[in-house]
Amino acid sequence: MRMRRKKNLEQKIAACGEYLIQPRCESLNFNETGENEQISLIELFGNDAPVILEVGAGKGKFAAELAYQHPEYNILAVEKDSSVCVDAVESIKEKGVKNARVMKLRAEYLARILPLQSISRIYLNFSCPFPKNTYASHRLTAPRFLEIYRQILKPDGEIHQKTDNMRLFEFSIESFSQSGYSLKNVSLDLHNSAFEGNIMTEYETKFVSMGLPIYRLEAYLPEKR
Amino acid sequence: MRMRRKKNLEQKIAACGEYLIQPRCESLNFNETGENEQISLIELFGNDAPVILEVGAGKGKFAAELAYQHPEYNILAVEKDSSVCVDAVESIKEKGVKNARVMKLRAEYLARILPLQSISRIYLNFSCPFPKNTYASHRLTAPRFLEIYRQILKPDGEIHQKTDNMRLFEFSIESFSQSGYSLKNVSLDLHNSAFEGNIMTEYETKFVSMGLPIYRLEAYLPEKR
Repeated sequence: MRMRRKKNLEQKIAACGEYLIQPRCESLNFNETGENEQISLIELFGNDAPVILEVGAGKGKFAAELAYQHPEYNILAVEKDSSVCVDAVESIKEKGVKNARVMKLRAEYLARILPLQSISRIYLNFSCPFPKNTYASHRLTAPRFLEIYRQILKPDGEIHQKTDNMRLFEFSIESFSQSGYSLKNVSLDLHNSAFEGNIMTEYETKFVSMGLPIYRLEAYLPEKR
Repeated sequence: MRMRRKKNLEQKIAACGEYLIQPRCESLNFNETGENEQISLIELFGNDAPVILEVGAGKGKFAAELAYQHPEYNILAVEKDSSVCVDAVESIKEKGVKNARVMKLRAEYLARILPLQSISRIYLNFSCPFPKNTYASHRLTAPRFLEIYRQILKPDGEIHQKTDNMRLFEFSIESFSQSGYSLKNVSLDLHNSAFEGNIMTEYETKFVSMGLPIYRLEAYLPEKR
């Protein structure tokens, strides 16, 4: 990254203020130190309302809209890319919501940063499909991630996934079922189904206008109920 | 049924000979008597080769082709309708295979007729979707049927489902995962996938020629492995 771009980004990050959390494990080699850096969600949001994660939140339009529609929840938008995190904070500020934060973090570290069984729901919206099978372990529904989500989800927690990518959805159905999750409200064409209350993401608007189907599912852990 | 049609059907059934099995529970009120009428698959086929079921076999083209392509297996085509059973026997005779039989039976009775853990694989091909939710329990992937299949399947047995019906497939994914099955080789567009060795059914040929996607999955019981 050029010096000026980097300086600009640093200024923008500083301007995010309390809306952006950057756990240290991203800069340290967390895997080696094993240092415990768990955050308190009550301190972070200033109340004990249920916390909803979006993993791979991108520019944060979905998280901001969810926070706006549901003031009774706290929304934590997780995104690994610093400059995209800045965009997500701007989305939240624009929406004028107080119940949303952005966390710069790779999904690999979620269970180190968030308390066990602390999350009510996880959204995975249009995650990168990593089409090559050699990169399957990078998909956010790969078994190693489902194990991390299992640790941070409350006993009655759920994962809600949407994607336009057929192969990613096939992979996800297999991965969830093989990792002990049960599935409900599966839709192979969301916009021609009876599902109500959908919040469109940037990607979704584009794909739907192209007439492409959107795939959706909800996953939960039966043994925890 | 008119007398002549009935007489014709009776003659045709008689001509099926050893290819058609009609367990008595279809004529008796089996639920009340609870009589044990389990058949011996080794006696039925004259050998101990692995047995594959097709439930809802219709006119038997798939079962006959499967028996033809796989002489190392025994194929049992289960169908509830007598006159369709006669068609299925004719398909088998036409194909000239010795390793296939037709059984006139409702799927509800499978675990009373077949030995426990005796079946290597179950095929569900283009089962009736029963689109109204009030008839969901009639779908061949409803939880009550998945429980019956669980009883008759071998520990490493599998269920292979194909359908053109999106709603039935959504329902099936939910039902399998909620009944403790794991899923693999899920395809949301079989004829544009890498899957090889597919045997086309009558329905499938029609749907594919219309450009409609075929959905397919394989289900297995992880706790039995």
